[in-house]
Amino acid sequence: MHRNELVVQIKKKKSVLCVGLDTDASKLPLHLQNDPNGILLFNKAIIDATKEYTVAYKINTAFYEAMGIKGWEIMQDTLAYIPKEIFTIADAKRGDIGNTATQYAKTFFETYPYDSVTVAPYMGADSVQPFLAFENKWAIVLGLTSNPGSQDFQMLSLADQSFLYERVLKTVSSWGTSENTMFVIGATRADQLQNVRKILPHHFLLIPGVGAQGGDVATVCEHALTDDGGILINVSRGIIYASSQEDFASKAQDSAKMYQQEMQQFIK
Amino acid sequence: MHRNELVVQIKKKKSVLCVGLDTDASKLPLHLQNDPNGILLFNKAIIDATKEYTVAYKINTAFYEAMGIKGWEIMQDTLAYIPKEIFTIADAKRGDIGNTATQYAKTFFETYPYDSVTVAPYMGADSVQPFLAFENKWAIVLGLTSNPGSQDFQMLSLADQSFLYERVLKTVSSWGTSENTMFVIGATRADQLQNVRKILPHHFLLIPGVGAQGGDVATVCEHALTDDGGILINVSRGIIYASSQEDFASKAQDSAKMYQQEMQQFIK
Repeated sequence: MHRNELVVQIKKKKSVLCVGLDTDASKLPLHLQNDPNGILLFNKAIIDATKEYTVAYKINTAFYEAMGIKGWEIMQDTLAYIPKEIFTIADAKRGDIGNTATQYAKTFFETYPYDSVTVAPYMGADSVQPFLAFENKWAIVLGLTSNPGSQDFQMLSLADQSFLYERVLKTVSSWGTSENTMFVIGATRADQLQNVRKILPHHFLLIPGVGAQGGDVATVCEHALTDDGGILINVSRGIIYASSQEDFASKAQDSAKMYQQEMQQFIK
Repeated sequence: MHRNELVVQIKKKKSVLCVGLDTDASKLPLHLQNDPNGILLFNKAIIDATKEYTVAYKINTAFYEAMGIKGWEIMQDTLAYIPKEIFTIADAKRGDIGNTATQYAKTFFETYPYDSVTVAPYMGADSVQPFLAFENKWAIVLGLTSNPGSQDFQMLSLADQSFLYERVLKTVSSWGTSENTMFVIGATRADQLQNVRKILPHHFLLIPGVGAQGGDVATVCEHALTDDGGILINVSRGIIYASSQEDFASKAQDSAKMYQQEMQQFIK
């Protein structure tokens, strides 16, 4: 997907909401747990219920990979069910050297036709650049993540006094453009968001950590939103598990709508 | 696999050779390229030809993932064909937060019963620790890789003047033990290997970069081998593509044997 198409969706829906399909078989509503197609039915119902408020879906591949071949089939069917105008993210966090990175790019851009894939930066340029060679496809590179372990390495001080994650943002952004590279920024604090925007004024940021993980939409929008959106705020559990009963889809819709309505106050 | 079982293989075969099954459909010998089972037949022939000289097989999952479901089937059949006493590595370079990391661990320890999986460290403790919770399974964490991009971040100087990769080795090794954690060390220079051994005297190191990538067995063995082996030297292309003709398996055997015979001079 070209950047413009994503921006059109954002303006039209007045939303920067990304729904995370981290569907865990053990967390399905009871009436779907014994259905062999339970996960796919669940995903389809969630997509139907939320697509009006959503500009992106993020599929956490690990939850599907753990099921083996059946999981990949469900993932493929889920991806195919997402309306074409909505941006899709394979949250797969791949990262390997040149020829292997090309295989991963083929996996998530061709075999499974996602618009984007999340990529780990530790192995450097030749592990990221192969993803940038595909037209209208995106690498979403880990910058600052929202988990406790982000303190272990991402927040290390370098010899020049900057943090490692700041160096990652600067270096990785020099390999591509704001039309093929985004960054995962699990920051929900105003000062961190401002700092990231100073380094990356134009890049799209994929922002997890809102909802179940404690961040709030207003702070993120105030400090990271740009004229054309420039952010995707991911919510997973707060939407897909809004109810564990038969009304899960309507409750997911209510939750997605609530997030969208909060976002629309900030979107021009 | 318990560490002792791996050491027994090393002593018995006088080898620390790991064969990398990065099987690329486009590089198969001509007579297998049109066979729908070509890749599996190739892998089985390589395993038969090299298992006498080999203590580990490393499957680069990207090459299989790119084929979609058929690739996962081939990977599963290849894994099942590897003799039980030989250590198996899913070279998948996964890395994500807690509950997602657990899904990846299930993928490569249960759904596909590998002994180990390669893991990226960027997201910190909660992205690695879930892999350490499985008995007799191993996380092989990226330390210093052998690609040009390793210079971009791994070799950054921290505020305390150490390199990032050194901090990664120290910190990650504190999360587990030398019985559940190994490190990828793509170092083939004597000084780097000595430095790594100073930081990690007991841990197994998975060492790529020998053969096609220019490193030599003697230097690696002289500076990284320990009393119980302590290293796995991975060779992929130099063995599996030793010939592109119908004699590929016998040529792979010759190559594996040559590596083993060089290694045995250093193994007590």
